[in-house]
Amino acid sequence: MKVGDSYYRSIWHEEAGSRSVYVIDQRLLPFSFEVMTLSNAGDVFDAIRWMAVRGAPLIGAAAAWGVYLSFIEQTGWSGKPDGKEPVVWSGKPASHEPGSRPGKPASHEPGGRPEKPSGIEQRIPADVYNKVISDAQRIKSARPTAVNLSWAVDYMTGVMKQFPDADVLRRAAQGLCDEEAERSRLIGVHGLPLIEAISRKKGGDSVNILTHCNAGWLACVDYGTALAPVYLAHDRGIKVHVWIDETRPRNQGSRLTAWELLNHGVPCTLITDNAGGHLMQNGMVDIVLVGCDRATASGDVANKTGTYLKALAAYDNGVPFYAALPVSTFDLSVDRPEQIEIEERDGDEVRTIDGIPVAPEGVPVSNYGFDVTPARLITGLITDRGICRADKDSVLKTVS
Amino acid sequence: MKVGDSYYRSIWHEEAGSRSVYVIDQRLLPFSFEVMTLSNAGDVFDAIRWMAVRGAPLIGAAAAWGVYLSFIEQTGWSGKPDGKEPVVWSGKPASHEPGSRPGKPASHEPGGRPEKPSGIEQRIPADVYNKVISDAQRIKSARPTAVNLSWAVDYMTGVMKQFPDADVLRRAAQGLCDEEAERSRLIGVHGLPLIEAISRKKGGDSVNILTHCNAGWLACVDYGTALAPVYLAHDRGIKVHVWIDETRPRNQGSRLTAWELLNHGVPCTLITDNAGGHLMQNGMVDIVLVGCDRATASGDVANKTGTYLKALAAYDNGVPFYAALPVSTFDLSVDRPEQIEIEERDGDEVRTIDGIPVAPEGVPVSNYGFDVTPARLITGLITDRGICRADKDSVLKTVS
Repeated sequence: MKVGDSYYRSIWHEEAGSRSVYVIDQRLLPFSFEVMTLSNAGDVFDAIRWMAVRGAPLIGAAAAWGVYLSFIEQTGWSGKPDGKEPVVWSGKPASHEPGSRPGKPASHEPGGRPEKPSGIEQRIPADVYNKVISDAQRIKSARPTAVNLSWAVDYMTGVMKQFPDADVLRRAAQGLCDEEAERSRLIGVHGLPLIEAISRKKGGDSVNILTHCNAGWLACVDYGTALAPVYLAHDRGIKVHVWIDETRPRNQGSRLTAWELLNHGVPCTLITDNAGGHLMQNGMVDIVLVGCDRATASGDVANKTGTYLKALAAYDNGVPFYAALPVSTFDLSVDRPEQIEIEERDGDEVRTIDGIPVAPEGVPVSNYGFDVTPARLITGLITDRGICRADKDSVLKTVS
Repeated sequence: MKVGDSYYRSIWHEEAGSRSVYVIDQRLLPFSFEVMTLSNAGDVFDAIRWMAVRGAPLIGAAAAWGVYLSFIEQTGWSGKPDGKEPVVWSGKPASHEPGSRPGKPASHEPGGRPEKPSGIEQRIPADVYNKVISDAQRIKSARPTAVNLSWAVDYMTGVMKQFPDADVLRRAAQGLCDEEAERSRLIGVHGLPLIEAISRKKGGDSVNILTHCNAGWLACVDYGTALAPVYLAHDRGIKVHVWIDETRPRNQGSRLTAWELLNHGVPCTLITDNAGGHLMQNGMVDIVLVGCDRATASGDVANKTGTYLKALAAYDNGVPFYAALPVSTFDLSVDRPEQIEIEERDGDEVRTIDGIPVAPEGVPVSNYGFDVTPARLITGLITDRGICRADKDSVLKTVS
């Protein structure tokens, strides 16, 4: 999406150039736009650990590049087309270190499907293999809960075992990113008609969308989840306006969503998390669009804390409420809200804002990061495979 | 209530001493506890205007003292019992300035009912009268919407016209404060049985109360409204625990309510405004108690923005939801939520915290200060005359 006059993804790699991967340091947004270079697995670990990159899909994408960077660091390949020929080994390492459990094959592999490389085959040296696996394990440990993180790492180490080739790994990581972006775009495509319909009904007047947290392109590779239909609508000339919940305690709304939308030129207004109810009571919201961290088989949605309160207000005022998610976010192993464990985070996130105290020192704090919106309050789920109702039948039909 | 080892009100006057009135500078809380001296009408104006004092009842109390301070400033009386005899004039000023419209008699006069003073009667000099009326008008303009503010000023100028005597005015202001405190105490008395009943039902386990904003003693003269039953319960040894919404954008919860409760020794936990829904879904809230800025004849309640969202969550989870208010807060001229006009405040309250930006520069902001919780979501209204249902019959019966 647009930043100034240029289009960006949240992560990219210069195919023809260096061994570096680039991300936007999201900790500095919205006050400073700085591109950060990730040159090795340690850089990737730090970027994820210290939240320069955040958002489950982006974390997964960064982790995939981390495995690639680890591999080329061991093999010394510059990655440049005019450099020396990539090292190509056979899939079997000289020895397996004990205890390494590579991930099982991914259920939906990225588009850049690896091909058997050409080149001189030789056995992958044990030290290379072991170091990459060790870096991969470290990257997996950078954040506790993101399922995309371990999925992406396991996918990449799986590719390495089959095709231990720098260029194959590069294409695998790039493919994973492209497929993330495409999934987001498809969510946009499927959500767009909802906005178009409201716009028609309002005779072309601006469609007022309320969103919570950041479910935009910064959290994904491109487009976003909740914001994908918004960007598509805006780019097609449909008038939209977004109410942005600031999203305490980490203010992803005021920092990231506001920055994204302003930069892409989408009209938006920042509000406190407290304000959405009043707006909905007064007909100032046409639709609520939020992201989703995990969805049950029954269509319940775990998302950033406070989402449930907005769903209640939407329901109370007849405002349609949609969560947007790739189908990979469904966790079919759970089908009741209470089965979802909610992460408790550091109390200092609430006691302070940017390190500035806003509460008495030492006041006890409870800081649940997410809440669960029950399916009964949800109008529908916008997925990359289409919109489904928030009930078991529809969910299983969409996922299968 | 307690601060350290001492008991405080939010405003007080040393009867036997100076012409000063004391308040706590609430802008510095919770980081610094500083008592501020108000020595003249200008000090009172500044304190209200710049929110060293806030909360409708406290603003009214400060304004009343402001009229008194203006009067003694003109008359030169020290206020000390051992000083020279107070100046006593007859009620009719030497001349009326045009356009002064003193308030109509108060519907419920404070307890310190003025008596005809003894002393040498003479006509009130025009310059004294005009200066006090002019100060009074200025004090009334310090904040736009607080009905207590203009009521208290009109009450005091009314007293001055009848009994232009420093000691009468002092007793009138003190009486107004005492009656505020007593009203709060009575709200506590009437709300206490709700907490006692839950405590009994839980076999003495801690009663979990969720509150929004600051409706404690800092907003009133003593006890508070929503917090009055909590203080009374705690002081009687009933185990209570308060979930404090931080209350963005001004953080009255994290700054003031947390400070109050910690100082009085009431167990409490600070949460974001987003968190209450999750807590209620998980049985962690037994009752919601909030204050009220204005209530309709039908029992709808305008209160700090975000209150409506908590009422929805309480209703959705079968948690009792009460608003606490003196009957003077009912506005019988309105009986539908949409008749209440909601103040829009400065966007910088949302863009910044303590002057530090938390959003992109120039992002549009909408900042409604209040919302209206419809009567259908309210279990009951705790007033100084007892608990009433949130419906027209009960409200009119309670008020009349």
